[in-house]
Amino acid sequence: MRAAFMYEAGDVRVQDAPDPVIEQPTDAVVRVVRSCVCGSDLHPYHSLTAADGPVPMGHEFLGVVEETGSEVSGLSRGDLVVSPFAYACNTCEYCRAGLHTSCPKGGFYAAGIGGAQAGAVRVPQAGGTLVKLPGDVDEALLPSLLTLADVYGTGYHAAKQAQVRPGDSVTVIGDGAVGLLAVLSARQLGAERIILMGRHKSRTDLGVEFGATDVIPERGEEGIAKVRELTGGHGTRAVLEAVGHMPAYDMAVGAVRPGGVISRVGVPQYESAPVGFMSLFGPNVTLTGGPAPVRAYIDELLPAVLDGTVDPGRVFDRTVSLEETPEGYRAMDQREALKVLITP
Amino acid sequence: MRAAFMYEAGDVRVQDAPDPVIEQPTDAVVRVVRSCVCGSDLHPYHSLTAADGPVPMGHEFLGVVEETGSEVSGLSRGDLVVSPFAYACNTCEYCRAGLHTSCPKGGFYAAGIGGAQAGAVRVPQAGGTLVKLPGDVDEALLPSLLTLADVYGTGYHAAKQAQVRPGDSVTVIGDGAVGLLAVLSARQLGAERIILMGRHKSRTDLGVEFGATDVIPERGEEGIAKVRELTGGHGTRAVLEAVGHMPAYDMAVGAVRPGGVISRVGVPQYESAPVGFMSLFGPNVTLTGGPAPVRAYIDELLPAVLDGTVDPGRVFDRTVSLEETPEGYRAMDQREALKVLITP
Repeated sequence: MRAAFMYEAGDVRVQDAPDPVIEQPTDAVVRVVRSCVCGSDLHPYHSLTAADGPVPMGHEFLGVVEETGSEVSGLSRGDLVVSPFAYACNTCEYCRAGLHTSCPKGGFYAAGIGGAQAGAVRVPQAGGTLVKLPGDVDEALLPSLLTLADVYGTGYHAAKQAQVRPGDSVTVIGDGAVGLLAVLSARQLGAERIILMGRHKSRTDLGVEFGATDVIPERGEEGIAKVRELTGGHGTRAVLEAVGHMPAYDMAVGAVRPGGVISRVGVPQYESAPVGFMSLFGPNVTLTGGPAPVRAYIDELLPAVLDGTVDPGRVFDRTVSLEETPEGYRAMDQREALKVLITP
Repeated sequence: MRAAFMYEAGDVRVQDAPDPVIEQPTDAVVRVVRSCVCGSDLHPYHSLTAADGPVPMGHEFLGVVEETGSEVSGLSRGDLVVSPFAYACNTCEYCRAGLHTSCPKGGFYAAGIGGAQAGAVRVPQAGGTLVKLPGDVDEALLPSLLTLADVYGTGYHAAKQAQVRPGDSVTVIGDGAVGLLAVLSARQLGAERIILMGRHKSRTDLGVEFGATDVIPERGEEGIAKVRELTGGHGTRAVLEAVGHMPAYDMAVGAVRPGGVISRVGVPQYESAPVGFMSLFGPNVTLTGGPAPVRAYIDELLPAVLDGTVDPGRVFDRTVSLEETPEGYRAMDQREALKVLITP
């Protein structure tokens, strides 16, 4: 098969790779129908050293089951499936509690397993991981269904962890695909005021269509001042941080209301951050979030995608073939594309 | 009147000070019946510079109302009252939401207002701040009633912010008065497993009487290993951190279960701390807590104190007169006393 590998920062190549095979009786092999480039793929695209490459890339995909191991039940050859970016058994106490990202049998695609920016993928814990989709689904729905693998569930996780509720006030930091789907999710959960912080008009315009009531292009202290201006000086009860860089954390601390919640889903590119009396402790601010257990949300989010109530697939604004994957990275990195869909 | 002032680290003096008077129509003047030394008073006792002193000390007290300003309602001369360590209006949106520590009209005793380790105190926002107690209360109940001013409400805040619930597993870090009352609070909220981390046997013995099911004297990595050993490798769902120093934070991160909550009420003696993928983010751990809005909890906690169901006043193991306050600091600092009660 063909598959994308990152050799080092800025260097993605599509090359021949061995076809994946069943290695464990709990595995399935899935032929990829749609995959995509994630905002988090851009972190190694900026920082991967040649010594750490090449690594297989991609962790979001829709596919068709080709083969299942002897212990996989509920899936048959030919089934259309969506895979969460983290595989998991879906039966242990963490999975039952909806925390599939902490499943002891679970893990992440790409390094160690094989990436989804490829012709096919070996899926560990396939019976617990893969969610079967209707076989006759309209092809136009594939982009929205693909968002269930990561970005939509991740934006939803931000809103759920912040316990967004009807009438709520929410700031979303970041106008990437996750930020925009955090807006959509906050709206679905009934937020009344949704302030989107982002400076790319085409993106924030989509954010407004998804439910943002206000857009703030300013950053840093200026951005914080705007949020406070819009909220009578208080800040919003919830801040959904969908970037992962330190300035976004600082903006979250500045924009949250005393007693409120900062919910992070942007993978932190820092380890330490302010949490003391002057930042979180004094105003009783809660910090939550983490890698989204998207498997826990698919059943909940799927119906509105299937019936067209929501159209999260609108975050894809460019499509490339698998062979063109390097161009997809380039376009996202240059912010020419919001999110890039990959067809076989 | 006589009042305690801290001149610099290790130097507390009781001296003459002007009697407090009504300055605002919302003030009351309260004659102090019982006050005490707080674990947080030991932070300046270790670090206050002579340039920053002298500062009036003490923020927990029971007293008798001597005089009220023209806008104070619901209080009369002679009423026995308890004061939360933070004064607040009790009518604004933060107070109505139970976050009295963020009241725009609120603030803290001691520096700026006057301390409670004194003959009398001026209480700002008296109508919102002070809670009237039964006039005929048994003197033996005074220590327990005094804990409502800070330590009991603070331990309870830790447990409430962690959403401790029946059947829960909880680690409490710190065997000071707040830690022990966090144990009591977790037990009241139905926690089944309560692991108390502390190395002072007389204190942890009281913790066991308050409801701790396990005691771990070890600290650091060794302490974390013990928590994991007791919990099948998982850690506890909630960790209540009642110390405020960095090693306690690190133990909390090590002892919490994936998807769990670290709830801090020990005033952080650090500003930055690990919150990234390797600490909080990866395992979806929530960090919460802050200064306790104890005013919000007094109505809830008072009945069980009055009827003797709980006896949080057992944390006081030494009593000094106001004149002996410096000796009270010394005894707490030397860990000869757990918590020192001050009589007039």
